Amino acid sequence: MQFAGSHILSIAQFERPDVERVFAVADSMEPYAHRRRVTKVLDGAILGAMFFEPSTRTRVSFGSAFNLLGGEVRETTGFEQSAIAKGESLYDTARVLSGYSDVIAMRHPQEGSVAEFAAASRVPVLNGGDGSNEHPTQALLDLYTIRKELSARGRDVDRLRIAMVGDLRFGRTVHSLCKLLCLFQGIQVVLVSPVELRMPGDIVEQLRAAGHDVLESEALESSIRHVDIVYSTRIQEERFSSQQEADLYRGRFRLNQSIYTEHCEPNTVIMHPLPRDSRVTARELDDDLNDNPNLAIFRQTDNGVLVRMALFTLVLDVAEQVHRHARDVNWYTGGRFDGL
Amino acid sequence: MQFAGSHILSIAQFERPDVERVFAVADSMEPYAHRRRVTKVLDGAILGAMFFEPSTRTRVSFGSAFNLLGGEVRETTGFEQSAIAKGESLYDTARVLSGYSDVIAMRHPQEGSVAEFAAASRVPVLNGGDGSNEHPTQALLDLYTIRKELSARGRDVDRLRIAMVGDLRFGRTVHSLCKLLCLFQGIQVVLVSPVELRMPGDIVEQLRAAGHDVLESEALESSIRHVDIVYSTRIQEERFSSQQEADLYRGRFRLNQSIYTEHCEPNTVIMHPLPRDSRVTARELDDDLNDNPNLAIFRQTDNGVLVRMALFTLVLDVAEQVHRHARDVNWYTGGRFDGL
Amino acid sequence: MQFAGSHILSIAQFERPDVERVFAVADSMEPYAHRRRVTKVLDGAILGAMFFEPSTRTRVSFGSAFNLLGGEVRETTGFEQSAIAKGESLYDTARVLSGYSDVIAMRHPQEGSVAEFAAASRVPVLNGGDGSNEHPTQALLDLYTIRKELSARGRDVDRLRIAMVGDLRFGRTVHSLCKLLCLFQGIQVVLVSPVELRMPGDIVEQLRAAGHDVLESEALESSIRHVDIVYSTRIQEERFSSQQEADLYRGRFRLNQSIYTEHCEPNTVIMHPLPRDSRVTARELDDDLNDNPNLAIFRQTDNGVLVRMALFTLVLDVAEQVHRHARDVNWYTGGRFDGL
Repeated sequence: MQFAGSHILSIAQFERPDVERVFAVADSMEPYAHRRRVTKVLDGAILGAMFFEPSTRTRVSFGSAFNLLGGEVRETTGFEQSAIAKGESLYDTARVLSGYSDVIAMRHPQEGSVAEFAAASRVPVLNGGDGSNEHPTQALLDLYTIRKELSARGRDVDRLRIAMVGDLRFGRTVHSLCKLLCLFQGIQVVLVSPVELRMPGDIVEQLRAAGHDVLESEALESSIRHVDIVYSTRIQEERFSSQQEADLYRGRFRLNQSIYTEHCEPNTVIMHPLPRDSRVTARELDDDLNDNPNLAIFRQTDNGVLVRMALFTLVLDVAEQVHRHARDVNWYTGGRFDGL
Repeated sequence: MQFAGSHILSIAQFERPDVERVFAVADSMEPYAHRRRVTKVLDGAILGAMFFEPSTRTRVSFGSAFNLLGGEVRETTGFEQSAIAKGESLYDTARVLSGYSDVIAMRHPQEGSVAEFAAASRVPVLNGGDGSNEHPTQALLDLYTIRKELSARGRDVDRLRIAMVGDLRFGRTVHSLCKLLCLFQGIQVVLVSPVELRMPGDIVEQLRAAGHDVLESEALESSIRHVDIVYSTRIQEERFSSQQEADLYRGRFRLNQSIYTEHCEPNTVIMHPLPRDSRVTARELDDDLNDNPNLAIFRQTDNGVLVRMALFTLVLDVAEQVHRHARDVNWYTGGRFDGL
Repeated sequence: MQFAGSHILSIAQFERPDVERVFAVADSMEPYAHRRRVTKVLDGAILGAMFFEPSTRTRVSFGSAFNLLGGEVRETTGFEQSAIAKGESLYDTARVLSGYSDVIAMRHPQEGSVAEFAAASRVPVLNGGDGSNEHPTQALLDLYTIRKELSARGRDVDRLRIAMVGDLRFGRTVHSLCKLLCLFQGIQVVLVSPVELRMPGDIVEQLRAAGHDVLESEALESSIRHVDIVYSTRIQEERFSSQQEADLYRGRFRLNQSIYTEHCEPNTVIMHPLPRDSRVTARELDDDLNDNPNLAIFRQTDNGVLVRMALFTLVLDVAEQVHRHARDVNWYTGGRFDGL
């Protein structure tokens, strides 16, 4: 894959060497993201952040990633009501707005809209989520987190053992993650969900075609015994076809510290795409896991900054220059990322 | 006109030498806007962008223009509900907010509000549109585009031949453009509109008083035969006094490639203030013109950045310093502005 | 108080030497805030401005203060609807968002929310107002203004004579100011309000326990004769228990130029937390005071920038480095802060 000048629209664009390249660059971003060093490699460059759908964390993560490289951010949030009400095409919007920045990060509620926008854009576009379709930077940060957590445990993505738990039918993030895992070897995947919310058959097929072991289950406890990663997702009750069905499963996929202690191997990593539902009736990951050092959910969002920095430097072709424009941080940082 | 420290509120402030000065500076901004060079001339300066009415493209254009000069942007969008609900005067708002920045770009739905704000402001204010009253940077970017497109064809604004098409009665941009054209010489203006939406008489008078030829017409095809520029604007059906009247004109002012080929001179430039309505029932400029190199509508919005950069450097009196704080761009730009 | 790495949540954190330290640093910020010098001491640092409640002036003041130190600002305004609707806890929000910046300024409608957020944040949090609870930077800028205005008149906060006028019962700013005044000595406080809106007894007690003279009154004119400062606040009619009560007091606490001339000492300073209600029926400070050089209300908001710059440099521990990263301003500033 030729990164310089490319749009990042879908994980389908990535072959294994591309993923490895992104991750290697992400690794090299750590001194900057963790506030030991400052780089100004993109000093003078402008990111156009177009969030036509609200998403605070994705928006701020992209913006901060660009600031951390020394660039400026011009944001648009909410629908561009006036222009859309006046019948402006996505083509026109893209032609105009791409004249105002060097790269664009875009989120849009409509499937395929980001690709349509990118086709008319004069600068690289990074997909920040287009409806239920794609959210490639989330998939990459998930896989990057898996790799990094395993690496700290002396292991690798190849031969990973992972349990995906919850709503596997509608969960966009687990679908994308499975597709990325097909680029690796010898993975054991346990898919834990209510029958109604099973992983779509075509994705299970892709995993098997890639040579991976796939097991499907409805029981949480037995499924998380021999895995490196538990990737938990939310189950929304309205996804079930009937209330009886929903009642049947209520609470059966919730992980807490006592279940973890009893059933998981000592270093099993817990992930979640966030936001996590912390209401008593709904939580999929209990708050009592907050002090568990294997809870990686906030390292995931931190890693999102690294991955987005990496993608920016790659599409703008400055990955090799980052360290040349660098110096030490001169303000108080308080060891905030120590132990990560 | 003394630019340093001045507010830019109305095109009525501009004499011909002022316009020439803005355009000369805008020309010199091209290496920065087109991403060959980076300047930091306004490094440390702050633009307060106050958009009390939504306008994505104008807001982002002002913000990016300021970033391209090295400055920072603090934005406010939507109504300042709390303060206004509490009865704060525009005077107080201006006194307070002008303490937070070095220059202000402001859009406000109410006619005259930006001038009222400017009177109390301690820093220069650029009018980004106050209701149906003034939008001077749009008028300047339109004229700048005309000048630039003509110059590439070996011609000048003096002796320009232009057709303005569509709603000439309510279209703020064509009114302002006509006033600016009065600063030039020997222009032929063809005004093409439904009878109900004719150019106001006082503006026609001003054009004639400036020595220009003015022709009014209801027929598109015959009016665009011998012009350098076709400036098209939208006709909103609700502007007509009756549906019969609207039906009478539907589609009669739409330009497409076949009409262009049949009736226009080979290099006739097509302009539009945007947004362009791309719905099938309403389009004033057909999508099949998108590949026509004479379609200048996106060069117009690009030029808006140059003109706004020029105004910022002039009111902040740094036009002469821009090149001193400059260096080459170090990231991938992919020849994005080639051929413009 | 150890500033480096601390949250600034409440004025209760401040002892007198802490206040003195903040004010000394604020003084040293003047060349930068008043646009004679530019500093880049926080070049590369990111402020996360989280305004979960609208407040244009506080938000822009924090943002500009950070920009004036050379840092970048990533803003979030309005409720984070999606995440909150999905049941995310303030703990999770804080853990995630604090990974995206070096310091956070936060406003939230709910009392105690900012402290709860800060407890989970990995970076220093500055409280920009949490409901009716605390707004420490407003209290500090008020006291800083008092100190600065008095200093220009050869006086000091010790032995200050101040009249607080208006709604003293619900006015958060006067409560906080009284608490800060308890750190100083020999102050005479005249509390002027309708009976129904008297200062809460515990605050009066605190003032007296600090050795201050406190006088309560319902009459404006006689109360402002021998004071250094008149601190006026708004009275909202809906605060009264009956319309008769409200009618009784209407207009009795409004200050205008003729009352000022007749009753105040020549140099009495007029302050107000803003926004000031400028509707004819409601104004607490008449517009005819606008040219009175002792009207300090806009110097108050200007001082807010200085105080916030000071707090940023203190919690990020760069106060000593500010001047090392400085140079002269190179753009037109027009003596905008002359005579302040």
